[in-house]
Amino acid sequence: MSAPARIAVDPALVERMIRELATDGAHGETGVWRTVYSPEWVAAADRYAAWCEEAGLRTRRDAVGNVWGRLEGTDAAGDAIVSGSHIDSQRPGGQYDGALGAIAGLVAIRTLKERFGPPERPLEAVALCEEEGSRFPAANFWGSRAITGAIAPGDPDATIGYDGETIAAAMRAVGLDPARIPEAVRDDIDTFVELHIEQGPILEQAGLAVGIVNAITGIRHYVVELTGTANHAGAFPMDLRRDPMAGAAEIVSGVIATAHRMGRPAVTTVGRMEVSPNGPAIIPERVTFTVDARHPDPVARQVLYAKHEALMREVAARRDLSISWHTTFDQDPLTCDPAVVGLLEGAAAAQGVPALTMASGAVHDTQRMAARSRAAMVFVRSRDGRSHTPEEFSSVEDCVAGIEVLAAALHRLAY
Amino acid sequence: MSAPARIAVDPALVERMIRELATDGAHGETGVWRTVYSPEWVAAADRYAAWCEEAGLRTRRDAVGNVWGRLEGTDAAGDAIVSGSHIDSQRPGGQYDGALGAIAGLVAIRTLKERFGPPERPLEAVALCEEEGSRFPAANFWGSRAITGAIAPGDPDATIGYDGETIAAAMRAVGLDPARIPEAVRDDIDTFVELHIEQGPILEQAGLAVGIVNAITGIRHYVVELTGTANHAGAFPMDLRRDPMAGAAEIVSGVIATAHRMGRPAVTTVGRMEVSPNGPAIIPERVTFTVDARHPDPVARQVLYAKHEALMREVAARRDLSISWHTTFDQDPLTCDPAVVGLLEGAAAAQGVPALTMASGAVHDTQRMAARSRAAMVFVRSRDGRSHTPEEFSSVEDCVAGIEVLAAALHRLAY
Repeated sequence: MSAPARIAVDPALVERMIRELATDGAHGETGVWRTVYSPEWVAAADRYAAWCEEAGLRTRRDAVGNVWGRLEGTDAAGDAIVSGSHIDSQRPGGQYDGALGAIAGLVAIRTLKERFGPPERPLEAVALCEEEGSRFPAANFWGSRAITGAIAPGDPDATIGYDGETIAAAMRAVGLDPARIPEAVRDDIDTFVELHIEQGPILEQAGLAVGIVNAITGIRHYVVELTGTANHAGAFPMDLRRDPMAGAAEIVSGVIATAHRMGRPAVTTVGRMEVSPNGPAIIPERVTFTVDARHPDPVARQVLYAKHEALMREVAARRDLSISWHTTFDQDPLTCDPAVVGLLEGAAAAQGVPALTMASGAVHDTQRMAARSRAAMVFVRSRDGRSHTPEEFSSVEDCVAGIEVLAAALHRLAY
Repeated sequence: MSAPARIAVDPALVERMIRELATDGAHGETGVWRTVYSPEWVAAADRYAAWCEEAGLRTRRDAVGNVWGRLEGTDAAGDAIVSGSHIDSQRPGGQYDGALGAIAGLVAIRTLKERFGPPERPLEAVALCEEEGSRFPAANFWGSRAITGAIAPGDPDATIGYDGETIAAAMRAVGLDPARIPEAVRDDIDTFVELHIEQGPILEQAGLAVGIVNAITGIRHYVVELTGTANHAGAFPMDLRRDPMAGAAEIVSGVIATAHRMGRPAVTTVGRMEVSPNGPAIIPERVTFTVDARHPDPVARQVLYAKHEALMREVAARRDLSISWHTTFDQDPLTCDPAVVGLLEGAAAAQGVPALTMASGAVHDTQRMAARSRAAMVFVRSRDGRSHTPEEFSSVEDCVAGIEVLAAALHRLAY
């Protein structure tokens, strides 16, 4: 293949698809409430399948309900080049998180098919069934886990939803057999490229529509418990207190300052705190809080964690508090495939789309897909950096710019 | 009157009364659960009345259920010298908070009567019906408010318990008529002296059994609300966040440090915090917390509050957060009557009981009683400074030392 002239994508098609997919589970003016295996999700999967058919792609659903549209390659033995994202949403989420990437893969392949005909390698668009864990909290990445063989035989019955139902029962209710999940595994995917909204303000601050993701952050969630001695808020002098709130405040300030000082892309967040007994006139006995700490660099990540843990120990010891913590989530970072990142950068340049190469601070299906394929991502600017809310928004122009970069990259990979 | 030789109180009597009163609402090994107008409270009030009768005191219940035992004076026109405390408890509390002071007044007067016969001025022991607000949160000081005319006509029907019942209904259920509350007002009390456990560790640290209270703290409760922007914990860089948790942590550390640096008896406590949406991977939108700040000195108290408010404003402005606060409780400090404090100090010296003159960091019925009488307090050492728990403990020796100081003071006041 050789680099073609600029590949143009139809803005009207992109906008129509975004708005139509958002009708499945529409929530208020601009929101979407579409959890996996719900009637709204079934409607969205059917709609996506119909679009694949309409584009002339060979369309099928796999064992967990991922929807695939395949454009056969002339090299029958070639592994596939795949692009897509998830179509489930937060409760409620918006019209872009996930959905835009599923649409992008389809629009890019449809555009390439119409302009260049059959590729050498097969091209596939995919609507992944589940990423958010918004119905079954332990089911994050259900679709990409199925594809990469990361669902254990006992998982479907052990994965319980917020309403108490198992994901196995929810699958059966939409005609899927949990026993057949292993059939969803794919070992014939060469490269996976996911387009997604950024979910942060970095592109907006940089004045750029498109980002090329070269790494996806590693995350550790700590749950920290600090215990002191509950006492009367009036009668107990400051100098004699074992106050876990004072310790927690110092740790919260410290971990936030550590990440800030380390600089981008380090981030640390304390989003959750519980105080016991939580009375205005009682020095607390116990303060429990989370520390979410992220860095895409494997070494810097360990430095960040070590600094956080050293601070937690030091504050507890100095204030004579008991401290314990455990990690509820610990995901390694992903360094995206450098060849694919380079190819995306080249595609952006060829398309005349200035793009920022950056890390993702959020987790994505790509992290799972990378277990069995080369993988990288394209980001599209989010207004005000918002996501997981009906207010999330990306302009059609930005979406088109991202899809054009994606299409140019798929062209380089498949033709 | 002239100062007599040491007045000795019977330790066995004191211990028996503490243990027996604790059987009304016994909770576990050493706890007491005795909320106002409950069957346990009725039993305790009956027991106290029986003890008063047994001591030869004229015994009566007033309109809110305070139990009074009066030893008439030879000067028929003299205003009364009163000592007592409350007999309701926390849920659960211990055997000493309140109860010890009710017993102390009775034991002191009984001892004086047995040794010195009728006083010149009338002496009265009182078991106040309610101080803790542990059944009706807005009913704190119900007994002392009734005595000082600080219950408004609408209060009984507007004061709602944790179970939804009004205090008016609870009064009727034990045979008290809320319409008659004004009859409880007393304008004939010259001096009120309350003995109470310290509830803090100051006497224990000083190695002393008894304290003389010369001031009761002023308290302000702030409820502070800090609002920023909820965003994705991974995708939003540290330098662009409006994170109310970071602001709250800085304010919590700051107000605690301010009180600590100001030195005893300044205290500031953050006992309660609520985070919204309180998710581990979401920068919070809003953090709400209480600030309980206390100082018994009217001027120092204003300095403490001004420093707290300046810090809250400064942190919010610097971090681009919205801040608002309101006060839910704002009680002026009480400077105890200097003559009564001096008399208590003299009584302790005469009894050979070394005593520390100190401020109270907790609020007490004395604050209310001081509206219409001279007032001061005697403190008894609390083990480990604990209170509001079944583990609160004061030794019989310490209790006796406190009651002997009280008795000597009542002797000076009434004989």
